[in-house]
Amino acid sequence: MSKPDGSQVLERLYATIRARKGASAKSSYTASLFQGGKDRIARKLGEEGLEAVLATQSGDKKGLVHESADVLYHLLVAWANAGIAPAKVWAELERREGTSGIEEKKSRSKRG
Amino acid sequence: MSKPDGSQVLERLYATIRARKGASAKSSYTASLFQGGKDRIARKLGEEGLEAVLATQSGDKKGLVHESADVLYHLLVAWANAGIAPAKVWAELERREGTSGIEEKKSRSKRG
Amino acid sequence: MSKPDGSQVLERLYATIRARKGASAKSSYTASLFQGGKDRIARKLGEEGLEAVLATQSGDKKGLVHESADVLYHLLVAWANAGIAPAKVWAELERREGTSGIEEKKSRSKRG
Amino acid sequence: MSKPDGSQVLERLYATIRARKGASAKSSYTASLFQGGKDRIARKLGEEGLEAVLATQSGDKKGLVHESADVLYHLLVAWANAGIAPAKVWAELERREGTSGIEEKKSRSKRG
Repeated sequence: MSKPDGSQVLERLYATIRARKGASAKSSYTASLFQGGKDRIARKLGEEGLEAVLATQSGDKKGLVHESADVLYHLLVAWANAGIAPAKVWAELERREGTSGIEEKKSRSKRG
Repeated sequence: MSKPDGSQVLERLYATIRARKGASAKSSYTASLFQGGKDRIARKLGEEGLEAVLATQSGDKKGLVHESADVLYHLLVAWANAGIAPAKVWAELERREGTSGIEEKKSRSKRG
Repeated sequence: MSKPDGSQVLERLYATIRARKGASAKSSYTASLFQGGKDRIARKLGEEGLEAVLATQSGDKKGLVHESADVLYHLLVAWANAGIAPAKVWAELERREGTSGIEEKKSRSKRG
Repeated sequence: MSKPDGSQVLERLYATIRARKGASAKSSYTASLFQGGKDRIARKLGEEGLEAVLATQSGDKKGLVHESADVLYHLLVAWANAGIAPAKVWAELERREGTSGIEEKKSRSKRG
């Protein structure tokens, strides 16, 4: 099949990432993130998120594609580290699809 | 099919989001984001990214599922606003799969 | 005296903030931050930091003055919550003044 | 004088920073920030802000002193780059001192 598919890519990447848990930190960047633990993963996720935010604000389309890929990758690492299967997040997104945006926002702002 | 699938969810959500471009800001939260433009979308993406980072650091698994869904939703809004098809980001992720993490990191740090 | 002075303003503000520790969360925004604890203070500091970053990138001078004041205020709350006297931070800044920027950067990147 | 004083430190540091505007990027870290312009300054301010947020949440007191100094330094660089005198920010903080925290928050949330 020629067209890449979000689920295939994200779930295959998740499997690849998870397979690196416990490997030597020298063997890959992913393994070094797991060794750094949640403090390091949080920091790197934050740095990539920041770059995606700045690319969004400046209207840098190519940069946003690149930084979005970085955010997704580090998000998958955060999930793998916390033992969250991607299907949990898809289910959370699906759960909201019944709710309109405005209602969703209201339910979110209760969390304050 | 019972199991939610990332591609279906993300691509369906992207289509729903894009359909709200140009609608009245009062009609939905998504439409209000588009009306606020890239400044507002960048800010909201940043706020949700921050919450995902804090949930990662504190080890709040349920919170991380929730905040990850928020990040994905706002990322899709940023893509729709910039005219980026999700397939562009999947292709960027696929392109990297050939590269090992450490090599990828090196190629990224050249961007400085 | 006509010209405001950084130390006077920041240290007086710090004293005012610290005096609200333990007050009812309804009595002031500051008291509500202390009641929310370090999770809430971290989140609010992050949100204001994000706005200062976006004002910096967009070149919004008036916005940057405003958001900088917000960052400083929330930073003082974070210090008061952690029991850090402002003089500790001034001393840390002074300690670095002997070091040139590039050297300082090198010493910081060791923390990587 | 033995006790460091915020005004002296911050205003002296601001003067030092401003004197590096236009210098060769190789001469100091500060000069390299100015050469990178507002995009680079925004990104670095964001990274340091993120670290201060994570130190706040994790209750890392020593780290918070360190990261706060980093935030203040990069904030001063952002001001110098935008042509904002520190006195402008002190005046903004003073202006708010008449306002109670809750009222301030309300006035801020109008900005949405």
